[in-house]
Amino acid sequence: MAFINEHYLKLQAGYLFPEISRRVKEFTESNPVAAARLIRCGIGDVTEPLPPACTEALHAAVDEMADRETFKGYGPEHGYDFLREAISENDFQSRGVNVTADEIFVSDGAKCDTANILDILGHQNRIAITDPVYPVYLDTNVMAGHTDTADDAGQYGGIIYLPCTAENNFVPATPDEKADIIYLCYPNNPTGATATREQLAGWVAYAKENNTLILFDAAYEAFIQDAEVPHSIYEIAGARECAIEFRSFSKNAGFTGTRCAFTVIPKELTGTDTEGNAHSLHSLWSRRTATKFNGASYPIQKAAAAVYSDAGKTQVQELVTHYMGNAKILREATIAAGLEVFGGTNAPYIWLKTPNAAPSWNIFDRVLNEAAVVITPGAGFGNAGEGYFRISAFNSRANAEEVAERIGAMAW
Amino acid sequence: MAFINEHYLKLQAGYLFPEISRRVKEFTESNPVAAARLIRCGIGDVTEPLPPACTEALHAAVDEMADRETFKGYGPEHGYDFLREAISENDFQSRGVNVTADEIFVSDGAKCDTANILDILGHQNRIAITDPVYPVYLDTNVMAGHTDTADDAGQYGGIIYLPCTAENNFVPATPDEKADIIYLCYPNNPTGATATREQLAGWVAYAKENNTLILFDAAYEAFIQDAEVPHSIYEIAGARECAIEFRSFSKNAGFTGTRCAFTVIPKELTGTDTEGNAHSLHSLWSRRTATKFNGASYPIQKAAAAVYSDAGKTQVQELVTHYMGNAKILREATIAAGLEVFGGTNAPYIWLKTPNAAPSWNIFDRVLNEAAVVITPGAGFGNAGEGYFRISAFNSRANAEEVAERIGAMAW
Repeated sequence: MAFINEHYLKLQAGYLFPEISRRVKEFTESNPVAAARLIRCGIGDVTEPLPPACTEALHAAVDEMADRETFKGYGPEHGYDFLREAISENDFQSRGVNVTADEIFVSDGAKCDTANILDILGHQNRIAITDPVYPVYLDTNVMAGHTDTADDAGQYGGIIYLPCTAENNFVPATPDEKADIIYLCYPNNPTGATATREQLAGWVAYAKENNTLILFDAAYEAFIQDAEVPHSIYEIAGARECAIEFRSFSKNAGFTGTRCAFTVIPKELTGTDTEGNAHSLHSLWSRRTATKFNGASYPIQKAAAAVYSDAGKTQVQELVTHYMGNAKILREATIAAGLEVFGGTNAPYIWLKTPNAAPSWNIFDRVLNEAAVVITPGAGFGNAGEGYFRISAFNSRANAEEVAERIGAMAW
Repeated sequence: MAFINEHYLKLQAGYLFPEISRRVKEFTESNPVAAARLIRCGIGDVTEPLPPACTEALHAAVDEMADRETFKGYGPEHGYDFLREAISENDFQSRGVNVTADEIFVSDGAKCDTANILDILGHQNRIAITDPVYPVYLDTNVMAGHTDTADDAGQYGGIIYLPCTAENNFVPATPDEKADIIYLCYPNNPTGATATREQLAGWVAYAKENNTLILFDAAYEAFIQDAEVPHSIYEIAGARECAIEFRSFSKNAGFTGTRCAFTVIPKELTGTDTEGNAHSLHSLWSRRTATKFNGASYPIQKAAAAVYSDAGKTQVQELVTHYMGNAKILREATIAAGLEVFGGTNAPYIWLKTPNAAPSWNIFDRVLNEAAVVITPGAGFGNAGEGYFRISAFNSRANAEEVAERIGAMAW
């Protein structure tokens, strides 16, 4: 038997979504009548169909694959230029942000990218994450051996946790200690919070002072409604020297089952070896991509490029408007019910304080049993998520209205 | 600046395919007339369109994605049951091989899988590879820090190289020393060789005696014509306790640009921790997949499942027959030209000895300049590949015939 990567054994068994599934299954099996009216607002998965511009592009690309004259075999590992150029132009240049096409690496998902980025980074880096957090950032560091085992409270030694609570508007102050790598996600999953230009500028200043690499997850940028909120870390001067940005087509264009995303690594961004020599992270990621990936599917890349067509832009905007309309309904209903409500104005997630500081799994059970609605307990995203719960706005309008009514009718 | 993974700095710059591109570019720029008749038989990329069964399935799946009633968001990270069951039934059970659907992990490519598998394995494993070899096996081990720097001959300390030459029919004997992990690929890229049942049984016996994990790459199994040659390592008794198998839709169904593959990990297969306790590799890979991957694209999985429809099977067989017809033409022409020729009977690659033991890059340059044909020099696959070159049978029939004529006409 070959040796295993023992760091995997440090991972905690009680992963959030399996535990939710277990409780939902128990509920539906013992309450068949209530089960029939169950509405899921747990996992952040889209419900509306792909934009017609994307399905048209998919059909056309499939026709290309059916004809030897237009058939495509292996594509460039980093993505086709037609997509990289469309991204550069529409997501960055048109907003006055300097990101060139050759700084964009197209992939099959932002989850993969935020996980795989550790491949090119050293094991000696000191890692900071926000708390609550998207579990992938933490778990991939545990798997890579960047932590000790978890303590009784579920926190891993070796990680700098930055609590995000109502007290700091869910944007942490820069820490006093030095982190080599910091994961930031704004608009935030799970809290729905955004970071202001000044807050991001503070993080860029910290990064430049401490030689920190910012891993900036902007998967939810399309949901920003407030013109003052930055869509990209590169809107902040100096960010090109200290940040990698992750983007996705999953949430804006509904690609969660279709799979396409991209990572931006500016050419001037460097990491250091133990002797202090600088090395291009763009070159390292380029080599990683060429060796361990064979490019995203050609038809899928054509569908992603259609997001930037005139029709595609309009249709994506309609999807965003739809989900943000749900968010408004859910916000208003929960505020009216007397709950303390955050998020949901520039992000598709509503983040709520549990009444009387009740444990979030208790609220999960109550909402499931009394309203037949699946929410996500904040504790599942980290210790600082305890005392909160998340409602996802990814749903049909009818379901969002029904959830608003049911949760509003509960005796909070 | 965060610390980089310095093991990347050990990678050798002169990667095979970029160097081929450079020489081809130089040739076409200085020989515009010859450039117009250039035929590429270098990289092993398919040229024929997708099977109609697959494009029909793709169109149907795209229509599903366009309708909210049938739309698919996040799928199971391990792949949809409809595909896992079709694979289990058609690739294994129907051949009397015990592989169940839940032992199959669907992905977007075998390159990713053969690279990512190292994630779940320890850094202390002693690695053996065949030489010549698909470069991904070696480079990913370099990146993971499993080697020293390369010596002047380009060989990395810490790796057990198993030379595969005409003298051993390109299947190495099991080594005297103990390897914890061995990569085997049959039918082989680049040599086109196959391993007999007895040879594979010898490797399984070695693995069981030495507690070795076999990473078996069967990406080319569809090209096997000889009924005696095993398609899967699991045709060998005992392999379920010592082997992981990688498969792909790239070469049989032409998915190199469409992207779908799968990995088989039997439930009873274990690895060990440093204290000697056994741990399920299926569980570890399952956790890795759930944390670092979001499943292959739904429409692409539907296309892959169509490979197993009656029409799909016929169409895939036609593709295999087409490419193996090319291989036969290329084999016969090169044998007639007096070259010593291997492979090409159960694999889409012809592997040839360079005349008078000429360096393989010299032959590359000669074939490029005299025949305007791009081949692959054996040295690019490892030191034991020196003295050989590869011709790919992935081409149109007209191109294969033209290449056969041109190479046949050279003064060997």
